[in-house]
Amino acid sequence: MNIQKAENRLVIENEFFKHKAKALKPELNKKLSHPISSIETVRDNASIHGWKSVFHEKAEELKSKSFEKGESFILDFGTHHVGYLSLDIEPVGSPPDAPLHMRLTLGEMPIEVSEPFSEYDGWISSSWLQEETFHVDILPSRVDLPRRYSFRYVKVEILDTSPKYNVSFKNVICNTVTSADSSKLVSLTSTDDKEIEKIDEVSIKTLQDCMQDVFEDGPKRDRRLWLGDLRLQALANYETFQNNDLVKRCLYLFAALPNEKGQIAANLFIEPKLIPDDTYLFDYSLFFTTTLHDYYQATKDNETLEDLWPMAHKQIELALARLDEKGIVKDDESWWSFIDWNDDLNKQAPSQAVLIYAMKKAQHLARILEDKDKVHNLELKIQAVTHATTQHLWDEELEFFVSGANRQVSWASQVWMVIAGVFDSEKNREIMDKLFEKKPNIVMNTPYMYHHLVEALLQVGNKQKAVSVIKQYWGGMIKDGADTFWELYNLSDKNYSPYGSHLINSYCHAWSCTPTYLIRKYRL
Amino acid sequence: MNIQKAENRLVIENEFFKHKAKALKPELNKKLSHPISSIETVRDNASIHGWKSVFHEKAEELKSKSFEKGESFILDFGTHHVGYLSLDIEPVGSPPDAPLHMRLTLGEMPIEVSEPFSEYDGWISSSWLQEETFHVDILPSRVDLPRRYSFRYVKVEILDTSPKYNVSFKNVICNTVTSADSSKLVSLTSTDDKEIEKIDEVSIKTLQDCMQDVFEDGPKRDRRLWLGDLRLQALANYETFQNNDLVKRCLYLFAALPNEKGQIAANLFIEPKLIPDDTYLFDYSLFFTTTLHDYYQATKDNETLEDLWPMAHKQIELALARLDEKGIVKDDESWWSFIDWNDDLNKQAPSQAVLIYAMKKAQHLARILEDKDKVHNLELKIQAVTHATTQHLWDEELEFFVSGANRQVSWASQVWMVIAGVFDSEKNREIMDKLFEKKPNIVMNTPYMYHHLVEALLQVGNKQKAVSVIKQYWGGMIKDGADTFWELYNLSDKNYSPYGSHLINSYCHAWSCTPTYLIRKYRL
Repeated sequence: MNIQKAENRLVIENEFFKHKAKALKPELNKKLSHPISSIETVRDNASIHGWKSVFHEKAEELKSKSFEKGESFILDFGTHHVGYLSLDIEPVGSPPDAPLHMRLTLGEMPIEVSEPFSEYDGWISSSWLQEETFHVDILPSRVDLPRRYSFRYVKVEILDTSPKYNVSFKNVICNTVTSADSSKLVSLTSTDDKEIEKIDEVSIKTLQDCMQDVFEDGPKRDRRLWLGDLRLQALANYETFQNNDLVKRCLYLFAALPNEKGQIAANLFIEPKLIPDDTYLFDYSLFFTTTLHDYYQATKDNETLEDLWPMAHKQIELALARLDEKGIVKDDESWWSFIDWNDDLNKQAPSQAVLIYAMKKAQHLARILEDKDKVHNLELKIQAVTHATTQHLWDEELEFFVSGANRQVSWASQVWMVIAGVFDSEKNREIMDKLFEKKPNIVMNTPYMYHHLVEALLQVGNKQKAVSVIKQYWGGMIKDGADTFWELYNLSDKNYSPYGSHLINSYCHAWSCTPTYLIRKYRL
Repeated sequence: MNIQKAENRLVIENEFFKHKAKALKPELNKKLSHPISSIETVRDNASIHGWKSVFHEKAEELKSKSFEKGESFILDFGTHHVGYLSLDIEPVGSPPDAPLHMRLTLGEMPIEVSEPFSEYDGWISSSWLQEETFHVDILPSRVDLPRRYSFRYVKVEILDTSPKYNVSFKNVICNTVTSADSSKLVSLTSTDDKEIEKIDEVSIKTLQDCMQDVFEDGPKRDRRLWLGDLRLQALANYETFQNNDLVKRCLYLFAALPNEKGQIAANLFIEPKLIPDDTYLFDYSLFFTTTLHDYYQATKDNETLEDLWPMAHKQIELALARLDEKGIVKDDESWWSFIDWNDDLNKQAPSQAVLIYAMKKAQHLARILEDKDKVHNLELKIQAVTHATTQHLWDEELEFFVSGANRQVSWASQVWMVIAGVFDSEKNREIMDKLFEKKPNIVMNTPYMYHHLVEALLQVGNKQKAVSVIKQYWGGMIKDGADTFWELYNLSDKNYSPYGSHLINSYCHAWSCTPTYLIRKYRL
């Protein structure tokens, strides 16, 4: 065991776990793909972000064209791609008497190849915007771009050649990468509903493009292993690609690097060396426990369960230590729990629910491990915390759970309390019905939170409403042009971004891939 | 023999010559170099281009600093460098949760790291401006920039990191490259004049930085083998590094690729494959002959002389074919002969002089080869062309040579007629004296033309004036901050550029390296 001294905390490294995770590093599946057409983008108020793509000509026309300084074109690869771009560049005219200077801009959505990145003013780093400006000194040349991109569209701009030559582009390809193996994909057989089939397909594409060396949250941004995303990806994976070793790898990675208290970080950096981010979130740490539970359910892998159970139980202990004297999770002003992207959302009640939910999963694992003391102990805790919850967070008059000092009523609180099973099925059903009737102001902004809404509906047996939400929400994204599901989608504000600009939003995001899980698991 | 079908002409390839040239490809000498200091640049009307560099701190202070989004600094390597840049980049703060986006701008002169390249509006390609904008996805990272740069200053701009981390830079190095071997440099012994010694030193540095796989015209721009530059570099080389095989290689390269008439191109592209540019210049083609002459004088390499003599003689024949019925080189409106960068300069008379000069060198080679027919034939031609020149281009009243339909009197015409020896020494001396007395309006813009002015002065024995011109002109560049001599320098307009912007001028340029030749050859 090593101690990693990071900037602002100690990290306790478990070499055995690191070694196990490393041994599970997947070989990536590669496949060459070509652009389908060139397009133009035009302003259109009816399209998302105000831009729509318009077919210009077939991609095969490209090779017969040449371009001079100031010219540009946009290639459309037909759907979302994650991979490496290569292209042949040939000079046309006199021998090239100056370098070629060019820019590539890669976009998952039309807006990214339409509005200049220089106008980006969001608060997270502009370095996520996918563009490369480079010189080519020797022509003809095959250019292999070294960075991995996540895109459908590639804008090519000729910044300068010389008055003596133009350039022509041939053999533009994307070498796609994923650790998902399409040949192992489980077929969808439970439905004839074309809309559901399409949503299932886009979910799988989303999952596939996020499956790399680890489960990434988004291949454009952050390209990182987050516990909240991992939990949902793993659920979708069990129903589809069944690359269970990738889940196992990620669990060992997280378990390898707790802080000095034993808490598991919200996300990890894999390269150049494995380090945990200095972000610790109440709900995400607990999802280590629930993800281990789900993994065991899918695999019955006792060895992994035995290895990781102490870490999983530790997360429960640490979360319980946050309870106040009334048995309620302490709230504070910091970004202590995630739940959803919503500055107005109070996190206390939904976090309390996540704790109850995780304790129940932990108790199930304790039962499997025949750890009677822990089963008993957890039972007492579950009862106590559930009791505290109904005592202090349930508002009998409002018939809703409330959260925080201002007794906020949010969708998130109700949804998580239902998932946690704080009340019985009947009462839960009433809560869900009432939620749709009263529609609290504190809404859901992410597919991540919408997933939990649907899961809650399914738990109370309201399949019809669940399907309707899936069709409205994820189906809405498809109608708005999604090839893969997006990080953010707010039906009442389609330009919503928590980052200050929808240019930086991720349009292939792991936590949005869950319809395939919901559709298959619940046979929708 | 192969026929290369280029865009607008046929090229007759000589595989034997290509093979000989390839076998002479030099190993480059490499040396690691570090920045000396960091600087700031400030507006200063007394400095060239209005910018001067001011010491900020020692370069070793860099490693203890960190930089955030929007910050920048300028490193000074102390003198001119040609080579490859590498640097270590380390994150400071939380683990880097977004790529680093940064820009390097490399400048031979302070102005290049002071004025934004986006304001460049010259007519030659902006792609010559040395800058790289790139992302680093994984930190810490050693970044090895793949392109070769020609620079003294490196501006480093942090375009974006993330709110969670800054970056620090360490081990910034330049791996310099040259085919000049400093250990073989001939010492300067003929003078005690410190100013002349300094000019000799800067000449040699200029030559050294232009000596790569071939003699390049300028390592920043065009990085190309031009015949006019080669001729002068070769002369400087014989007096200094004596890498005569590099001259030989370049002669074979040029000889390998004449057009279908046998004319040698003004310049060659070496990579990705050897091709001649589609520029053919009257004077430059003739310099193949004179460069072969000078090479033989330096080496007595009979094999090369015998190989290349037919091509050398061919250039004379082709030039003679341009004579009109009066025996004068036909003028036209195109860019048919170089002579100097000066839009107002008529090229007819100086080109006529270059022809006579080249014929005399050719005749000398014919004598060495004991080719009596050619010696005799060239004698007749030299007499005829010289006679035509004195008949039609000498203005008895003005006592100057005139050029073109408008009978232009230029410095270039007089200088080249003196070098060609159209008149005897005494009359040539009078012409040179009168030139400095009358100072025609059609001036000289390049060190290339100034070289010929000094050579003409030395040929008429005016050593004092020659030294005075060298000190005023090349010494002037040093006073204006030259570490290597510049492509362009006009004493009366120091911002002069034939390209519409002095940002794009080359500040290490082969044709400016000749003072070392003049100083050593004529023992100044």
